[in-house]
Amino acid sequence: MSLQPPRGTRDFMPYDMVRRQYIFSTVKRVFESFGFNPIETPAFESWDILSKKGAAGDDVKDEIYYFKDKSDRELGLRFDLTAPMSRVVAANPQLPKPFKRYQIGRVWRYDRPQAGRFREFWQADVDIVGSEKMDADVECIAAAVRALEALGFRNFMIRLNNRKILNSIIKKIGIEERKVPDVFRSLDKLEKIGEEDVIKELKSKGVSDSECKSLMRAIKLKGSATEMLKKGNEIYKSSGFGELEEMVKLSKKYDIDKYIVIDFSLVRGLDYYTGPIFEVFVKEFASLGSITAGGRYDNLIKTYGGRDTPAVGISLGIERIYEIMESKKMFDLPACTTQVFVAAVSDDVRKNVIQIAEKLRRGGLNVEIDLNKRNFKKQLEYADALGINYVLIVGAQELKSKSFPLKDMKTRKQVSMGLESVVKKLT
Amino acid sequence: MSLQPPRGTRDFMPYDMVRRQYIFSTVKRVFESFGFNPIETPAFESWDILSKKGAAGDDVKDEIYYFKDKSDRELGLRFDLTAPMSRVVAANPQLPKPFKRYQIGRVWRYDRPQAGRFREFWQADVDIVGSEKMDADVECIAAAVRALEALGFRNFMIRLNNRKILNSIIKKIGIEERKVPDVFRSLDKLEKIGEEDVIKELKSKGVSDSECKSLMRAIKLKGSATEMLKKGNEIYKSSGFGELEEMVKLSKKYDIDKYIVIDFSLVRGLDYYTGPIFEVFVKEFASLGSITAGGRYDNLIKTYGGRDTPAVGISLGIERIYEIMESKKMFDLPACTTQVFVAAVSDDVRKNVIQIAEKLRRGGLNVEIDLNKRNFKKQLEYADALGINYVLIVGAQELKSKSFPLKDMKTRKQVSMGLESVVKKLT
Repeated sequence: MSLQPPRGTRDFMPYDMVRRQYIFSTVKRVFESFGFNPIETPAFESWDILSKKGAAGDDVKDEIYYFKDKSDRELGLRFDLTAPMSRVVAANPQLPKPFKRYQIGRVWRYDRPQAGRFREFWQADVDIVGSEKMDADVECIAAAVRALEALGFRNFMIRLNNRKILNSIIKKIGIEERKVPDVFRSLDKLEKIGEEDVIKELKSKGVSDSECKSLMRAIKLKGSATEMLKKGNEIYKSSGFGELEEMVKLSKKYDIDKYIVIDFSLVRGLDYYTGPIFEVFVKEFASLGSITAGGRYDNLIKTYGGRDTPAVGISLGIERIYEIMESKKMFDLPACTTQVFVAAVSDDVRKNVIQIAEKLRRGGLNVEIDLNKRNFKKQLEYADALGINYVLIVGAQELKSKSFPLKDMKTRKQVSMGLESVVKKLT
Repeated sequence: MSLQPPRGTRDFMPYDMVRRQYIFSTVKRVFESFGFNPIETPAFESWDILSKKGAAGDDVKDEIYYFKDKSDRELGLRFDLTAPMSRVVAANPQLPKPFKRYQIGRVWRYDRPQAGRFREFWQADVDIVGSEKMDADVECIAAAVRALEALGFRNFMIRLNNRKILNSIIKKIGIEERKVPDVFRSLDKLEKIGEEDVIKELKSKGVSDSECKSLMRAIKLKGSATEMLKKGNEIYKSSGFGELEEMVKLSKKYDIDKYIVIDFSLVRGLDYYTGPIFEVFVKEFASLGSITAGGRYDNLIKTYGGRDTPAVGISLGIERIYEIMESKKMFDLPACTTQVFVAAVSDDVRKNVIQIAEKLRRGGLNVEIDLNKRNFKKQLEYADALGINYVLIVGAQELKSKSFPLKDMKTRKQVSMGLESVVKKLT
């Protein structure tokens, strides 16, 4: 019997959890500051919902954990948080619009596990359902950037494109409309497999040599946002240009326009995007890929049988954020949540330790005591092994004077004080 | 295609989530105050782990969501948080002991859904692994009681028994040892199906008429804790009586001894308990059953191939707690997390709204703005529909004077103030 967690999944120990909970609570705080409200949906959905055309890319479908319950219902573990949210919105047409929700939770994909890729991983999403205005798209990006800032990241790059623009480019070049989803899926691999292999793939899908060349030229257009939108619209004519222009304008109000790079080669893998698409990079770690991405998907809710409802959202990849923050030592956090260990110097004072601990707890501190009747030295060793920063020492003399040595386990220095002072010092 | 969540599962909307998050964060805070640290384990475990003899009661085994992954690995959704935790401890013998962890999360059982019973539900557990002392058992109970107090519950009843005592009773009566697990399972149904049916079941398992009578008499013993432990030990002789005596003594330090009722008819359903077992009731809602229960399971870690490690834990049933709190109006919480809606009186001031919202957000407020270019009246209606308590009104005049009417949506009264005053008022 293996004691390891199932392949592609992980156990998180207190050290990890202190850091992960910091990420979650920070992201939650920022999302709520933008007026996003929390919802939760089940870990599994009916197979009908998950396999709904348009909800997932073709690749994703092969990667779902599928199972039947004991009544032969077909179910699957959710592979993202957008499909369940779309179902909820379709099921509740009475919800006031826009419906702005955040959701932070696990998703599962039966992917090949590799460095930084897991079969069980966490996403943090905000979505705005019921506004077709670019205000919604920009607010999603702003919320994501503010969350990353609150975590300590600086210097972003926001790659911005629009599926409408890509559609216009493809149309102008003369590629048949039915090939569009295939073309998008190939273009999405540009960074991963390189231009040569993308062209090879496109050709195998029936895109001609000259079409490939025109396509590559078009998506590689470079320049300032203003230039590219003006020039692009002259050649390809699409309402997508105006939308991006509006986004750039609105993003000034959030002071994030300086991060925007218009990039016609940005495609995003999912089939369901219909308008603006975007990725946020931290410049310093750009080689690690985007840590946040999203886009507009105006047809998805309808796909689920809901009313025709515009929607846009963005998703933070928690695992990549954690990885970067840990490797770059961006966490300034203790090893564990416990702040003080109250140690009994000798057996005769043990009976007083609980009440001292309870007083400190009422003051708001996280306090551990000895549960194993160990001697003083062993208690200190234990507190050290757990990484608890302070030990409060209780002896007969201290009980009389009501002043207790508080030992800083890092500096090994100790200062005596009353319990109220301990609370004050550590909160 | 059904848009409902799968049978036995639920979607939680913002109103529910505000309340559920309040329960989670309160419980988390109290658990941490006792020096419990967070861990997380995967949603699914290998089937080997879940079906391990002793990990689950016989009933539970039939109720697991079982599936295979695409490599034919046998997996199952976790049915509790104790089995995964035991695996983690067995896999990590280097962990300093006692290992005190809390875990708040979803578990799944393929149970028949009924009022208050779900196939996906949340548990909040604390466990202490590596102490055989009663200090650990009492700390678990104290942490649970403090958590319930923090949620607003008062007047508890702590039912306390010990599997060692039950074993002694059964032995003294002369029931064969091999029948013990069966006897426990039947006795556990006492409240659910009544004495008559329990006796019927016991007889069908080969327990004689006189044995049944003696058993019923023994477990129905009533009296003060001191009386029962003294009298019980005289007749049945077991170290279990001394353990409970020690627990009563220790619980005085937490001022929870007043809640303790020794009850030899308490059995608990799970096979793996070896020592003290306990249930916490809120007296007022005792008819709804226990909302917290647990016990000592000194053999479970070894079962998973770990070292012989004593352990004790308690589990809070989040769904029942939520149900009681909601029905008894114990939540004093807003309808949503958003505190202020910043409304534009007319189109010419829209461009200022984002920056005002951003200022309030930097002050720590949760702020929503109009994303749909709606008129003022529609904005107010929307804020009202969401249950946002305050609307800050932005017009040309207000921008000039830097003083904005803050409208209380409940009283419909409004007072003008600067942005800093808004922050001060609402934080």
